[in-house]
Amino acid sequence: MMERELERRAALVSGAIEQLLPIVHPRGLYEASRHLVDSGGKRLRPSMLLLAAEAVGGEATLLAPAAVSIELIHNFTLIHDDIMDNADVRRGRPAVHKIWGESGAILAGDTLYSKAFQVLGMTPVQPELILGAMNVLSRTCTDICEGQWLDIEFESRERVSENEYMEMIEKKTGVLYGASASMGAILAGGSPQVAAALDEFGRLTGMGFQLQDDVIDLTASVTVSGKRQGGDLVEGKKTLIMINAFAKGINVEAFGKRDATPEEIQKGILQLEECGSIDYARSRAEEMVAKGKRALGVLPDSKARALMLEMADYMIRRGH
Amino acid sequence: MMERELERRAALVSGAIEQLLPIVHPRGLYEASRHLVDSGGKRLRPSMLLLAAEAVGGEATLLAPAAVSIELIHNFTLIHDDIMDNADVRRGRPAVHKIWGESGAILAGDTLYSKAFQVLGMTPVQPELILGAMNVLSRTCTDICEGQWLDIEFESRERVSENEYMEMIEKKTGVLYGASASMGAILAGGSPQVAAALDEFGRLTGMGFQLQDDVIDLTASVTVSGKRQGGDLVEGKKTLIMINAFAKGINVEAFGKRDATPEEIQKGILQLEECGSIDYARSRAEEMVAKGKRALGVLPDSKARALMLEMADYMIRRGH
Repeated sequence: MMERELERRAALVSGAIEQLLPIVHPRGLYEASRHLVDSGGKRLRPSMLLLAAEAVGGEATLLAPAAVSIELIHNFTLIHDDIMDNADVRRGRPAVHKIWGESGAILAGDTLYSKAFQVLGMTPVQPELILGAMNVLSRTCTDICEGQWLDIEFESRERVSENEYMEMIEKKTGVLYGASASMGAILAGGSPQVAAALDEFGRLTGMGFQLQDDVIDLTASVTVSGKRQGGDLVEGKKTLIMINAFAKGINVEAFGKRDATPEEIQKGILQLEECGSIDYARSRAEEMVAKGKRALGVLPDSKARALMLEMADYMIRRGH
Repeated sequence: MMERELERRAALVSGAIEQLLPIVHPRGLYEASRHLVDSGGKRLRPSMLLLAAEAVGGEATLLAPAAVSIELIHNFTLIHDDIMDNADVRRGRPAVHKIWGESGAILAGDTLYSKAFQVLGMTPVQPELILGAMNVLSRTCTDICEGQWLDIEFESRERVSENEYMEMIEKKTGVLYGASASMGAILAGGSPQVAAALDEFGRLTGMGFQLQDDVIDLTASVTVSGKRQGGDLVEGKKTLIMINAFAKGINVEAFGKRDATPEEIQKGILQLEECGSIDYARSRAEEMVAKGKRALGVLPDSKARALMLEMADYMIRRGH
């Protein structure tokens, strides 16, 4: 049931993007800006915004512009991150900077950034509510920059603590889910208490989502996930799984070894499975999602609330 | 007189930046974000915002956060432009990407972008007024991206028309001055008509400022301007001066010749002076500033209005 409900909202968001981010002069800039936005993705964040608004009793269809603003911010961060990581591919298509160059990709991201605020400003609700949502969105963007900065900084560090890692994923991934849920509540006229509870819901489930991503990197084959199994491992990413394994004194040879053989990678994955580090990340993800779901206790029972609870489970149950 | 008045406002803005953009965790990110902001500049845009607010009868001291937001946006665009242009130096200091790398500079710019909206949201005036100003700022940021896109696109073009050039500098430079003046008016409670007139004032004087910049490139020696005389010329920039000279069939050998000798450069400058192309740009700049000043006719006479008129003249009278 939830899949269909999410697809319906994803379609609403995609239709609104077509209207709110038209390809106008100078066309190249808008084509570059739309490239990643149009390549799909599950639109989980804008769907969460719409569901949160419904759960608070708001008219979600009015909030399509706000939902689009969240999706544009998400895509802006991906475009800039891909430049920084020198990533070639995103969602099965060439990264924006691979087609339009670094300058084009910097500008495409910057354009999505400002368009997000423009579009949010068009949401047909009272000015105070829009301003409240804008304040959340701008603070969230600053947090995301801090998270990406930490992520880059960790690459050159010998060791990263579990708390540091959790702070990084909270800022890089959690806060935008938190903003999605709380902006939906704010724009639907929810109280500050409800908005805070929805922020907690989004933030914690978003962190669970990221931890699950780390697990999927090791457990899903390329045919399932579209990504090389153990990609994070050979790139030497200090995920919670690796931090946990380091603490246990496990030495994984394939870690940071970009030319590791499939056998070496499989051996590393087996080690991480056997020492319990993958399970540790799974259990932390489950714990966060459970805590996030409890935060929804402030809301009355409703179909939207039930869908949000389902969505939270989906974020850590998904296999890819 | 005006210089002292501008310095007073510049000092107010610098003090507010210290408060509103503190260097916090992760420190590297905030040091990178502050690097260019702290290297000075004349703070013309935030001063224009404050003067516009005063001219409309507002309490300018309340608007320090809004003035800071304009300065942060300006610096964000410079940081990203310097990456795209691979510029080494800005305001006599190494460009941000030369110290923190491209990733650091992308993130420093992105941080200033979101901080600008955060800080604008703190302006202690009614929510509708803040939202009005935010809508202007986000639209302006989109325009600036379009302007920078056009500027880059022009590099690879054989010919650029005068209208295309004027559109580019309007978006790249004019609109942020327009936003400065109109946001000051909006936040001080000015009518939409007054805000539109102030937008026109800022936009046209900003374009005059840019045209004067093009003139200065050719007429000021390095000891006066701090930049290599004829730098735009040898880089092959298709400024209004060059577009006008092309239309007259003038062939300037040093154009686009990065290794031109000082003699070749001087010869080119002399040609452009003699064929009247430099004067043409000067007269277009004067015309725009005169038109911009006429737009201030909607305002009652005041000290702030007089200062704005003086500032407009300064923008094209300055020798560097």
